[in-house]
Amino acid sequence: MNFASDNTGPVHPKVMEALLRANEGHAMPYGGDALSRQVADRIREVFEAPEAAVHLVATGTAANSLILATMARPWSTIFCAPHSHINEDECNAPEFYSGGAKLTLVGGENAKIGADELAAAVAKEETRGVHGPQRGPVSLTQATEKGTVYSLPEIRAITEVARRHGVRVHMDGARFANALTRLGCTPAEMTWKAGVDAVSFGGTKNGLMGVEAAIIFDKTLAWEFELRRKRGAHLFSKHRYLAAQMEAYLDGDLWLEMAGAANAACARLARGLRQVPGAAFHYEPEANIIFAEWSRAGHRRLHDAGAAYYLWNGTLDGGPEDEKITARLVTDWSATGDGIDRFVALARG
Amino acid sequence: MNFASDNTGPVHPKVMEALLRANEGHAMPYGGDALSRQVADRIREVFEAPEAAVHLVATGTAANSLILATMARPWSTIFCAPHSHINEDECNAPEFYSGGAKLTLVGGENAKIGADELAAAVAKEETRGVHGPQRGPVSLTQATEKGTVYSLPEIRAITEVARRHGVRVHMDGARFANALTRLGCTPAEMTWKAGVDAVSFGGTKNGLMGVEAAIIFDKTLAWEFELRRKRGAHLFSKHRYLAAQMEAYLDGDLWLEMAGAANAACARLARGLRQVPGAAFHYEPEANIIFAEWSRAGHRRLHDAGAAYYLWNGTLDGGPEDEKITARLVTDWSATGDGIDRFVALARG
Amino acid sequence: MNFASDNTGPVHPKVMEALLRANEGHAMPYGGDALSRQVADRIREVFEAPEAAVHLVATGTAANSLILATMARPWSTIFCAPHSHINEDECNAPEFYSGGAKLTLVGGENAKIGADELAAAVAKEETRGVHGPQRGPVSLTQATEKGTVYSLPEIRAITEVARRHGVRVHMDGARFANALTRLGCTPAEMTWKAGVDAVSFGGTKNGLMGVEAAIIFDKTLAWEFELRRKRGAHLFSKHRYLAAQMEAYLDGDLWLEMAGAANAACARLARGLRQVPGAAFHYEPEANIIFAEWSRAGHRRLHDAGAAYYLWNGTLDGGPEDEKITARLVTDWSATGDGIDRFVALARG
Amino acid sequence: MNFASDNTGPVHPKVMEALLRANEGHAMPYGGDALSRQVADRIREVFEAPEAAVHLVATGTAANSLILATMARPWSTIFCAPHSHINEDECNAPEFYSGGAKLTLVGGENAKIGADELAAAVAKEETRGVHGPQRGPVSLTQATEKGTVYSLPEIRAITEVARRHGVRVHMDGARFANALTRLGCTPAEMTWKAGVDAVSFGGTKNGLMGVEAAIIFDKTLAWEFELRRKRGAHLFSKHRYLAAQMEAYLDGDLWLEMAGAANAACARLARGLRQVPGAAFHYEPEANIIFAEWSRAGHRRLHDAGAAYYLWNGTLDGGPEDEKITARLVTDWSATGDGIDRFVALARG
Repeated sequence: MNFASDNTGPVHPKVMEALLRANEGHAMPYGGDALSRQVADRIREVFEAPEAAVHLVATGTAANSLILATMARPWSTIFCAPHSHINEDECNAPEFYSGGAKLTLVGGENAKIGADELAAAVAKEETRGVHGPQRGPVSLTQATEKGTVYSLPEIRAITEVARRHGVRVHMDGARFANALTRLGCTPAEMTWKAGVDAVSFGGTKNGLMGVEAAIIFDKTLAWEFELRRKRGAHLFSKHRYLAAQMEAYLDGDLWLEMAGAANAACARLARGLRQVPGAAFHYEPEANIIFAEWSRAGHRRLHDAGAAYYLWNGTLDGGPEDEKITARLVTDWSATGDGIDRFVALARG
Repeated sequence: MNFASDNTGPVHPKVMEALLRANEGHAMPYGGDALSRQVADRIREVFEAPEAAVHLVATGTAANSLILATMARPWSTIFCAPHSHINEDECNAPEFYSGGAKLTLVGGENAKIGADELAAAVAKEETRGVHGPQRGPVSLTQATEKGTVYSLPEIRAITEVARRHGVRVHMDGARFANALTRLGCTPAEMTWKAGVDAVSFGGTKNGLMGVEAAIIFDKTLAWEFELRRKRGAHLFSKHRYLAAQMEAYLDGDLWLEMAGAANAACARLARGLRQVPGAAFHYEPEANIIFAEWSRAGHRRLHDAGAAYYLWNGTLDGGPEDEKITARLVTDWSATGDGIDRFVALARG
Repeated sequence: MNFASDNTGPVHPKVMEALLRANEGHAMPYGGDALSRQVADRIREVFEAPEAAVHLVATGTAANSLILATMARPWSTIFCAPHSHINEDECNAPEFYSGGAKLTLVGGENAKIGADELAAAVAKEETRGVHGPQRGPVSLTQATEKGTVYSLPEIRAITEVARRHGVRVHMDGARFANALTRLGCTPAEMTWKAGVDAVSFGGTKNGLMGVEAAIIFDKTLAWEFELRRKRGAHLFSKHRYLAAQMEAYLDGDLWLEMAGAANAACARLARGLRQVPGAAFHYEPEANIIFAEWSRAGHRRLHDAGAAYYLWNGTLDGGPEDEKITARLVTDWSATGDGIDRFVALARG
Repeated sequence: MNFASDNTGPVHPKVMEALLRANEGHAMPYGGDALSRQVADRIREVFEAPEAAVHLVATGTAANSLILATMARPWSTIFCAPHSHINEDECNAPEFYSGGAKLTLVGGENAKIGADELAAAVAKEETRGVHGPQRGPVSLTQATEKGTVYSLPEIRAITEVARRHGVRVHMDGARFANALTRLGCTPAEMTWKAGVDAVSFGGTKNGLMGVEAAIIFDKTLAWEFELRRKRGAHLFSKHRYLAAQMEAYLDGDLWLEMAGAANAACARLARGLRQVPGAAFHYEPEANIIFAEWSRAGHRRLHDAGAAYYLWNGTLDGGPEDEKITARLVTDWSATGDGIDRFVALARG
């Protein structure tokens, strides 16, 4: 009953096996080995983007920051949602990597950037010549930190605003697979075919040990990205162990299998929680995250039984037992039906 | 016969086993798990430094840059050897992480910083008040990039200069274990007992997949380091897999065993190469690196037989067969006696 | 009839005279001359702050950015109003000087930061440990970019929130004198006695050629400020010419005389515009700035007669003559009653 | 008898008159006024470069740092002489403005960069792919900090090395006029006709209050420079007062007249000092700076008589009276023959 995050569960056994397989003999470092090259090609295949610049890093913040820094200038402002990881959870990494760019927060419904709100925000910048920040890239999070998913039309509406103003679009895909599973489309359809210029293609939250691919569809940015990655200390010498994880991830569509399991677990959990008397959902769970509230008494039962998850706007103690407290629940590939059912039963009381 | 670097060989099987062991159930992320705490304590024990700030990162450049940024200010200059990794091989990462500090190059014999040269360089800075850069930390590399090792008196001579001028001392220990093995002293003796303030305690070049410990003996710097690590995108969510590697590294002194094997392989290789007619060594090999020159004909034989290593100042083609060309040879724990002997035989002809 | 800004008018003749007086013989550079020292002392006297760190720079953006960088860390977030100069009009200078700090926008009434809104915003940060930005200084603009003025109780309410959370408070006083004139209090009362930690004490918008004093009441920050100023290329070699301007500014309270004239001109202009049929004010003009709207026809008459000022949300052409368009009008010490009356007459038609 | 620097003397009266003339009526800010445009055109004329990007700033460090940042990337290394102002006297401003570029020091004779030394240094960089810093611009100082002047062939030898490696060349011309006077050529001949890409065209050390023109011959860099200037807080609102100084500077070749006077004063001083028993010159004075040594007794006489200048490697007290101590002497337009002769007489004893 651990729903604290999708980074608390184990690495998928097939990924561990791939690491063991890669651990044979010598391999050229820094991505110069055969496996690293093959994996980059495989990602290009999966994204139907034979020319894309593809680089591996070990953390999602690195992928996001390095891509955004490559697409922005220090005097840019990056457009993103208030709840985005780059704004709330990266300790100013985008500002650091970009050399001091600003983040302009753009609201919208369901924790997403709204196309109209974006149009207004982008139009407002660059109205003062040299005095204000200049328009930089848009960054949208798919799936969002609140567990909602942009539809393809929603993505296209955003990229059209961006295109109109000559700015690029980044997709923070820490939960790319969860969103893709939800939409049932191809990686290309959810990205470049919808006008997205670069993707942080996440693996860490979906069963890997620690690998994300930074995919930039305009390959002319590849060398700058490589220099930024090295300068940021994110170029791994023993690169084959990043590549091996990604190889296993894509092999036989393990990544989609894991995301499917995580989303299904989330749906099962949501179904169950809807039966909890008085439970309410803050967002419609469309991927693998739930924000829902129920009584303190229910949380107490779960807590006492060892369930692990975060309370978002309240504490276990210090209030009436029937007060509603919000939980954030995240599922990953390893969640079991038993654990979910037990969780729901405890929440119900 | 791969002596290209100590990052081209495999990870030690015991490290892989530790990763498999760690891959059970759930664990709190970002270093909040039990194993991560235990490993930090274990490092404090190994260094006899119960109060030290200990943090894991995945690359040596990250450890170096984050420590130096924590000990410098943007207007500092960092004193280091011309051949140091931070000067030549990190694509300006120290400048990036420090917010624009300068590197002042300090010469000396055997690829080391000389204490007298350091005293002159440090004295020269801060003679212009606000106009020049201010004195920042000294960074020494142990073992050096050229395979030499600072003796304890040499380290102390450097830290005394630093202490006299109120600046701190960082040790880039990407090859810490190789140096320690050479000196036959304790980690404490080679570091804080000799006046060193912080260490990049390397594992990646010595049999790990990718882990370095940043050890700062002044624990008041811990929180700033943590913020810098997070902002630099170097805080791993699935932190247990860094911890597991380091656990195996220290367990039963595996790290010293591996470094001992690497150094012994290097010594065997050096002994053999000394028999090659006309061979000459640029530095006395004291750890696991050799810079030596012999005839192009010898290199050609090795090349044709599939030996992998870097030529430093010449190419296989385009010159007389008896011309001397310098090779850089690096050994790691996995080097075999057979491979070495075959290499030597080919070099001899 | 030039109300485009308070930086379009001439320098006060007494300031020019002071520059001529200072232009005698030799003077030590970089602030080492007697006049520079005297002027710093004089500012300390004016602010009743004998221990304050006082440094001159030539632009308001420099004063703001250098102070904020000195009081923040790269991983901080600075709390400011959406319309603040540091957010909208400095092309990311605060982000640049701070090494990548973030700006958190805090709303409130009348273009000011509201104390309650600030309390909520500050409380929200540092709730995620190392993941989110850390709490940095609050920056309030006195007078605001919209021409409103914080009362002393309003300032104190803000500084109390800051104090409670252990963060410092900066006052962007590009129009310090205009605000002070409005409040009729002393510089000390409007700053440190009300809990303000540092001030950008503006002169450029109030009759000087280009001088601002950065005043930090905690003198332990002086040396860091000096290093940042030099590193930012803002330390003038011929510093006496900055000092001379500031000397004339304070001498005989010329600064208050000029601000008084500017505010009086603004009040006269506002009185007149209230008579314009259909005119409406967006903010109550409390210093030397007016945001007011009236018909396009009125703007056209003014434009044709050569009046200079900015239209804020519309253009002279492309709409009906009775459509309301907003003007920003700024007065300085040199505004004449005749010009104002003529302006008003034209607006009325 | 003040030879401490060329920034200790007064501003030329004609410059003050121009400031008074400019102080009439209103003018659009930020360089939008007519005078600012005219002055930029005038500089283009003087440099025979009708397409050049020309921008004014108030300090030499600003001009240098902004140009270098515009021509470098954060992962570049800038090639410069060890004694250059950008290396020794700008408190890491180039590193700050460039976002963390490195400075590679290149030796040579007479305090100049040697073309051969430069060729070796540039060739050595970019030999490690992504690992080392990338080649950035060359910066040469004309005249040098030691008072020597690059000949046209020397400049061309340097720019040819740069061209061969695809890097740009910046000229730090804080003492541009002094060097030009020495060479007797045109500004175009000393810059773009000799392969120089950008110039910090100094005025502050040659009779202005504080103005330097940043001239970049490739106008496509203009907008980036403007953004960097604004972000660096170096865009003056009351820009006409920078323009007025530069107008007077160029009018009737006042700049060359002042530099001629400074150089002549230096030559007279040098002639005199050659007569001082035991005096020796460290460099041949070719512009307006002398590095020469003579006895402590001589320095004492000068000191007691009130002469102002810097001792470079010794102090007035604490050694035998006949010990040689080095003085740095700098002349400006305001130096008088009487003062020089009196100085020489005192040095002689």
